[in-house]
Amino acid sequence: MTLFFRTISVEEAIRASRSIAVRMPSEIIPLSEACGRVLDSGITAGADIPSFSRSTMDGFALVTADTIGASESLPAMLRLAGRMGMGSGAGIGVSPGRCVYVPTGGAVPEGADGLAMVEICEQLGDQVLVRKPVANGENIMTRGEDFPAGSMVLTKGTRLTHRDIGALAAVGAARVPVTRQPVVGIISTGNELVPVPDIPAPGQVRDINSYLIGAFLVNRGCIPEYSGIVRDDRAALRTVLTRALERCDAVLLSGGSSKDDRDMTAEIIRESGEVLVHGISISPGKPTIIGRAGGKPVIGLPGHPASAYIVALVIVRPLLAEMTGERDPGFPVRTLTLAENVPSARGREDYIRVRIHGGKAYPEFGKSGLINTLIRSDGLIRIPAGKEGLEEGECVEVILW
Amino acid sequence: MTLFFRTISVEEAIRASRSIAVRMPSEIIPLSEACGRVLDSGITAGADIPSFSRSTMDGFALVTADTIGASESLPAMLRLAGRMGMGSGAGIGVSPGRCVYVPTGGAVPEGADGLAMVEICEQLGDQVLVRKPVANGENIMTRGEDFPAGSMVLTKGTRLTHRDIGALAAVGAARVPVTRQPVVGIISTGNELVPVPDIPAPGQVRDINSYLIGAFLVNRGCIPEYSGIVRDDRAALRTVLTRALERCDAVLLSGGSSKDDRDMTAEIIRESGEVLVHGISISPGKPTIIGRAGGKPVIGLPGHPASAYIVALVIVRPLLAEMTGERDPGFPVRTLTLAENVPSARGREDYIRVRIHGGKAYPEFGKSGLINTLIRSDGLIRIPAGKEGLEEGECVEVILW
Repeated sequence: MTLFFRTISVEEAIRASRSIAVRMPSEIIPLSEACGRVLDSGITAGADIPSFSRSTMDGFALVTADTIGASESLPAMLRLAGRMGMGSGAGIGVSPGRCVYVPTGGAVPEGADGLAMVEICEQLGDQVLVRKPVANGENIMTRGEDFPAGSMVLTKGTRLTHRDIGALAAVGAARVPVTRQPVVGIISTGNELVPVPDIPAPGQVRDINSYLIGAFLVNRGCIPEYSGIVRDDRAALRTVLTRALERCDAVLLSGGSSKDDRDMTAEIIRESGEVLVHGISISPGKPTIIGRAGGKPVIGLPGHPASAYIVALVIVRPLLAEMTGERDPGFPVRTLTLAENVPSARGREDYIRVRIHGGKAYPEFGKSGLINTLIRSDGLIRIPAGKEGLEEGECVEVILW
Repeated sequence: MTLFFRTISVEEAIRASRSIAVRMPSEIIPLSEACGRVLDSGITAGADIPSFSRSTMDGFALVTADTIGASESLPAMLRLAGRMGMGSGAGIGVSPGRCVYVPTGGAVPEGADGLAMVEICEQLGDQVLVRKPVANGENIMTRGEDFPAGSMVLTKGTRLTHRDIGALAAVGAARVPVTRQPVVGIISTGNELVPVPDIPAPGQVRDINSYLIGAFLVNRGCIPEYSGIVRDDRAALRTVLTRALERCDAVLLSGGSSKDDRDMTAEIIRESGEVLVHGISISPGKPTIIGRAGGKPVIGLPGHPASAYIVALVIVRPLLAEMTGERDPGFPVRTLTLAENVPSARGREDYIRVRIHGGKAYPEFGKSGLINTLIRSDGLIRIPAGKEGLEEGECVEVILW
C-alpha cells in the first residue's frame, strides 16, 4: 500500500502551471468596460496631451519679465487685453505690458510665459496690479506635458486600474484592445458535498469551493462557469469534465479528498491529455494535480476550501496571468516583523496565515483547514522549502489578501 | 472683485459629506453575486460548522492512550475495525485496541480521540502498526471548531471579499442581505469638453472625468449613470441635474473650472436644495461643492481629472460608505520613510502623489494637474493642514492606490 505520491517544488509547479496556459485572443472593447482587463497591446498618445498650453489656475497670463521686482508696495501694472473663454483657442496675444485673463484649464495665449494667480492680483478697470514676481512657466501646463505625442501611456500586459481608465480617456482611447476573459470551469467533486442551501447530514459538508473559487476567479478577471457537485464516480466525472472542457478555456476541479479519489481524477485527466504534476511540496495544498486535457489546462485543487484557496493563489493565479497576458500579477506585500516563532518542515513550502497588529505579523496557528482564519487574517507568509521555520523578530514579507 | 471663497477644513467637509448621505435600502441577493457588496445585517452560524468531527488527514482514528510509547521498534498494534466512506456519518465505533480508516475530511467515529496519519502507519491485513504516539485531538477538526452554532461569522457593514463569500457558503448563507448599490449620476460640465473619441481642437480637452470617476464608482460598488457633457449654461445644467436627480441616489458634477462657473453650479444646487460647503482647504481640490438637491447628495468636483479624483477619494468615498453602510472604508496604508522634503502651505491639507521604491516614498513633484502621475505613482501622502511640510527621513503613511 503506497501512500506517498511524488511531490515537486512550488517553483516547478508554477512553471508547469504556466507552461500549459492557453493565451486568450484579443478583443476590442469600450473603455468604460475595460477596468480590470489586461491590455493586449501598448497604448501610445497619438497627439500631445494637453494639445495646447493650459492654465492651472484662474489668473492673468503675462510676460514674466514684466513682474521682476513686483511687490505689495510696488506692484507691476499691466493692461488687461482680454479674457479667454473656456474651450476656445488662442486669438488674443500677450505682449510686454499686457495680460489676458485665463480661467483654470483655459488656453494660455501666445506670447505669455507665466500666469499670475488671481490671489496676487487686483483688477482696476482695464488695469491689473500684480503684487509678486511670476516665474517662467508658473501656473502653466505646457502642451504635451502630460503625454507627449508618441509616448507610451500604458504597456501591453497592464491590468487596467480605474486611474488607468482616466489616462486612456485622456489620450482618446475610447475602445481598447484587451485579452478575452478566460471562461474557467469549476467542478466540485465529493460524495460528502451538498449544495450550500442544504442542511448537511452527519458526514456531509457544503460545497464551499464553487463559491469561494468562483469569487476568486471573478476577482482575477475571469468568468466562472459552474458545473456543480459531482459524486466520486468515474463515469460521472468524465462526462462533466468533457462537457466543461467544451465550454471553458480551463477547468478547476476541486475535491477528491482521499488518495483513491485523487488517483481517479488524475486518471481521467490522463485519458484525454496528460498529468504534469501530481503532488506539490506545499502546505496546505499538497494533493494538487496539474494537467492538460483536450489541450486545455485542468487543475485538481485539494477538496478542503482553505487549501484549495491557497493553491488558487499560488498556482492558479500565475496560470491565469499567463492566459490573459497579465505582466505582473504579483501580490501586494508588506514587510513586517514576525511576532512569534513559526515551525515548518524542511522540504515543504509553508503558507501560514497571519494577522497584522501594531506593525507585527502574528501567525494564526491552528488547523490549516479552518475557514474562519481565512477571513480573520490579513494575509500569508511563505516559509521557503529550505527553511525549518521562522523566528520571532525576523523580517517577513506578508502577502496581503 | 472678490476672488476668494470661504474654505473649510477637510475634516469638516467629510463630516458634511457624510451628513447628507441617504442610506440605501436592504435587498436579498444570491451569494454568488455578493462579492464587493456590503452586508446589511450580521450573519451567524445556524449550526456547528463542521457539523461533525472531521479528519484533516488520511489516517486511522484511534484511542490515543493505545499509542503511548509507540515507536519504530515498538509500534502500537491495532485491529482495523472498518473504513469510513466520504459523506457518511459515524456507524462504526472505535474502542481501545481498535482503529478505523478515515479519509481526509471524513467523519471521525465515536470513541476515537486522535488520528494517526497514514505516513506513520503500516497496514498488515486487518492489523495496523502505529509507529509514533498520537496526541489527543491530533489531525481532527472537532465539531463546531470552525464556526460554533450561534457565533457571528461576519458583521453588518462588512464589504464582502471573496474569502468572505467562502465563509458565508460554509454556514449556508446562499442568499444574503446587502444594501442596494447606489446609482450615482455623473455630469461633466464645461465648454472646453469634447467626447473621448473626438480629436480636441485648440482650447478643448477630452471628457476624462466621466470615465475616471465612473470607474472609481464601479470600484466602490456603485452603478454609474452617465449624463454626458453639459455646456456651461444655466438652463442646460439645471435640466440635466433635475433629470439625473430623478434617476440617481446621488449626483457628481464635475467641472465649472472658473469661478463664475462654480458659482453658477452652486446656485443651481441651491435652487432645489442647499449648499453646505463651497471650497475646501485641500490641494488639489479646493473648488469643491458639497450640497443637497431634491433630498439627495450633489457633489461638485473640480474640473481637472487629477483634482476630481483626489476629491473623490477623500470626500466622496466616505459619502458612499455612509450610503451603503460600509463600516470601515479605510484606505490600505503603508508606513514608509520619506525620501525628500515636501513643502506645503499651512492651513491647507495637501495630498502629494508618491512613488514607492526600496522602502522609501518619493514625492512626485510637478503640477498636481498631471494625469500621468496618477498612473505612475503608488499612492498618496497627506500633509495635515497644521504642518508646513514634511522632511526627508520622516515616517509617512502612504495611502496606497
